[in-house]
Amino acid sequence: MLKFNTYYDYENKNLETFAYESLVKEKESGEIGYYHLPKNSMDLLNELDNINYNFEKIAVIGIGGSSLGTKAIYRLLKSNYKNVKEIVFLENTDPIELKNHFSKIDKNNTLFLVISKSGTTIETISIFKAAIDYFKLDLSNDKIIVITDPASNLEKFADKYSIKVFNIPKNVGGRFSVFSAVGVVPLYLAGFDVKKVLKGADEFFESFFNKSEWHLIRKAAFLYERSRCYKMNVVFSYSSLLDEFNKWYVQLWGESLGKINKKGGRVGLTPIGLLGSIDQHSFLQLLIEGPRDKTVTFIKVKNFENSLKIPNISLPFLETTDFVNGYTFNELINAQCDATRESVVRSGIDVDEIVLEKLNEENVGMLLVYYELLTSAVGALFEINTYNQPGVEFGKKILKTKFNS
Amino acid sequence: MLKFNTYYDYENKNLETFAYESLVKEKESGEIGYYHLPKNSMDLLNELDNINYNFEKIAVIGIGGSSLGTKAIYRLLKSNYKNVKEIVFLENTDPIELKNHFSKIDKNNTLFLVISKSGTTIETISIFKAAIDYFKLDLSNDKIIVITDPASNLEKFADKYSIKVFNIPKNVGGRFSVFSAVGVVPLYLAGFDVKKVLKGADEFFESFFNKSEWHLIRKAAFLYERSRCYKMNVVFSYSSLLDEFNKWYVQLWGESLGKINKKGGRVGLTPIGLLGSIDQHSFLQLLIEGPRDKTVTFIKVKNFENSLKIPNISLPFLETTDFVNGYTFNELINAQCDATRESVVRSGIDVDEIVLEKLNEENVGMLLVYYELLTSAVGALFEINTYNQPGVEFGKKILKTKFNS
Repeated sequence: MLKFNTYYDYENKNLETFAYESLVKEKESGEIGYYHLPKNSMDLLNELDNINYNFEKIAVIGIGGSSLGTKAIYRLLKSNYKNVKEIVFLENTDPIELKNHFSKIDKNNTLFLVISKSGTTIETISIFKAAIDYFKLDLSNDKIIVITDPASNLEKFADKYSIKVFNIPKNVGGRFSVFSAVGVVPLYLAGFDVKKVLKGADEFFESFFNKSEWHLIRKAAFLYERSRCYKMNVVFSYSSLLDEFNKWYVQLWGESLGKINKKGGRVGLTPIGLLGSIDQHSFLQLLIEGPRDKTVTFIKVKNFENSLKIPNISLPFLETTDFVNGYTFNELINAQCDATRESVVRSGIDVDEIVLEKLNEENVGMLLVYYELLTSAVGALFEINTYNQPGVEFGKKILKTKFNS
Repeated sequence: MLKFNTYYDYENKNLETFAYESLVKEKESGEIGYYHLPKNSMDLLNELDNINYNFEKIAVIGIGGSSLGTKAIYRLLKSNYKNVKEIVFLENTDPIELKNHFSKIDKNNTLFLVISKSGTTIETISIFKAAIDYFKLDLSNDKIIVITDPASNLEKFADKYSIKVFNIPKNVGGRFSVFSAVGVVPLYLAGFDVKKVLKGADEFFESFFNKSEWHLIRKAAFLYERSRCYKMNVVFSYSSLLDEFNKWYVQLWGESLGKINKKGGRVGLTPIGLLGSIDQHSFLQLLIEGPRDKTVTFIKVKNFENSLKIPNISLPFLETTDFVNGYTFNELINAQCDATRESVVRSGIDVDEIVLEKLNEENVGMLLVYYELLTSAVGALFEINTYNQPGVEFGKKILKTKFNS
C-alpha cells in the first residue's frame, strides 16, 4: 500500500485531462512498451526456472538504464531476505573500482549478465572484454547471459557462442526497462520474489488507467505549470535503503524531461535526490532559506522490520536528548521526516509525500511505476519526446576522436 | 598538484578584490577558524601517537559535518593503502542500516568515536545510546573517544567517565571541520598519512593568500554575478572514488550559501554532484538540452595506480567498440571526461575543470581547501553569514513535539 499526501492546493482540469489522455494514447498505440511490461514479463519467470547454472554471485555488466533500476530494487529488498545471492554491479570505467570488484569475483561461482540495450555501450563492452581477459572466460562454456534488443549486434555475438539471450522489447527505453528482462533476470536469479514486484507494478498501472490515481496526474500538471519557477524537484527519501532508488529517479526524470521541444525551446526539470535524516544536516538549510526554486516530495517508510530501540539510558549532561528514549529508530526517523516536512511546508515550499506501508515487493513495484507514469505525464505536457536522449550522442562521437585507430 | 582550467571568459576586478579582501579579513580577525586548521592540527598528531588502544576497526558515530569530510578522504585514499583499518560510519537513523552495521561490529576490536560539535545531536547521541545497550559498553573501560566543542555537555559527560576528548575549535563550523580533530583523529588512527593531507591543505591556503590562486577568486565572482541565471552548480567527478567527496561538497555549498541575506532576500546556489562516466547515462541529456540554469565543474584524476587495460580482443559483431582496445581504463575514463566536457562546452554551458595529478594525500587536502575557500568567497560576495545554519532549527523544535515526554 502506498499513500499520497499533498500539502498545497492545485487543480487544472484541462491540463490534467490532456496529460491523462496522452498517456492512454501512448499505451494503446503500442508505441511505448513499458506500460505493458509487468504483465508481459510474467512469462519470463517460467523461462528463468529452466536456467540451471550453479552460481553464488551475479555480476551485472551494464550501466545507466541497464543497472540503476535493478540496483534500486536490490537495495530496497535485500534486507528482507536471508538467502538471496549477491549481485555485483560492474558499471563504471573507474580503474580502481573495477579492479576492486574483479578481485572479489570467483568466476567459478559467478554468473555474468551482460546488459546493453543498443548492444554496443562502450563501458559495458569494454568491461566485458576486460572480464574475458581477467577471468579467462570461455565464452561458449562459462556462465554468461546476455540481455539486449532483438537482433542487436550483441545478440548476434551471443548467438555465435550459444550464449543465452533475453530480449528487451524494442519499444521499451533503457530507463523504463526495470520490469523487462533487464531487472527481472538478475533479481529473479538472485532469489527475489519478482512475481510480487511485477504484481505491485501491474496493480498500479491498472489503478492509474482506472483513473484511481488522479493525484498523480494533478501533480504532473502542477509540476509542468510551475516549471518556470520551480526548476528543481527534490525527492527527500527517509531511509538509507532508498539511496539507489534516488539515483534511478534522477536518471528517469533528468534524461526524460531535459529536452529541446518542437519549437526549439529548452525544457526540463532538475531532479535532486536527498536522504533523511542525513541531508537534514546538509541540504535542508538551502531548502528552508534559499531561493524558492524547488518542490519537495518526501518518501517515508511507515514500518521497518524489527527496528532497534533507543534504550532508556539517561547519560549525565545529555538529558536533553532523552525525549526519544524508549522509542524505536523506526519512530525516530519517521518523526524526523514529519518534523522536517512541517518545517519545509511552513517555510512556504510546495510539498507532497509518499508513504510506503512497508518495504515489500508490491510496494517497491508500485513506487517505481508511480515515478515512470509521473515522468510520462510531465513529458506529455511539455510536448517532448520523453523516451529518447539525442543530447548524449555528440559526446560519443567526440570520444572516438580521442583514440588513434 | 592540481590544475585549474576555465572554458569561459570572465573578469570583474572589483568583485574579485572585494571577495579576496573579505577572506583575508576573516582569516586575520581570527573569527573564522578553519583557515588556520591544517597548521594547528599538526600538534594533534603527536597527541594521537600516545593513544594505545588495540583495535582493528573504527566506528565513527557522527552525522553531517562530523562524518562527511572523513568519509570523503577515507574513500579517496583507502585504495592506496594495504593496511589501513576499516572505518564504519554510524550516521543515519535508518533502522535497517543501523542494525546491519551493528551486526558487523565486534566491540572487542572496535574503537568508538563519538563526534558531535554541539554535543547533543539527536542522531549521534541516540545511536551512541543504542550502541551502549547493544554492545554492553563499559563507558569507563571500553575504547571510546569523544570529539566535541570545548566545554560542551558531551565533553562534560566524557570527563565524568574519564573518556578521552579531542576538541573542535569553537570558531570552526561543522562543515569546515575536516582538518580539525573531526577528520584527523579517525583518519590518523586508521593509519592514513594525515600529515601529508594537512601539508597539502596548508600549501593551498598559503598559495591562496599569496594571491597565487586568483582563478578561485575569479570563479567565485563569476558564480556570484551569474547566480540569478545559473542557479545550480554541477560537480561532475570522473571517478567512483569521488562519490563521498561529492556529498561533502553538497553539504558545504548548500548549507553555507543557502541563506536569507541582510535585506531579507533569499540567496543560494544549489549543488549537484555527478559521477562520470555513470551519469553520462543519466543527467547528461538534461545538461545538454535542458534549460541553461547550471554551471559545470569537471573533476578528473590524471593518473590512477595500476589501471587495468581493455584487452586487444575483437568480439565478432562488436568491432565498433574496438577503438579503445589496448588502452587502459585510466585512459578511457579520462577520454570520456574530455569528450563530455567538450560536448557540454559546445552546447553553450560555462565550464571549468580541476585536474588532480593523482589521488594522493596532498592533492586531496588541496581539493578540499579549494572548495572551502570557494564557498567562503561566494558567501562573502552574497554578504551572508556563510558559517551558520539558522534554517534547520525550526525542524528540531518540531521534532520534540512529536514525542510524549
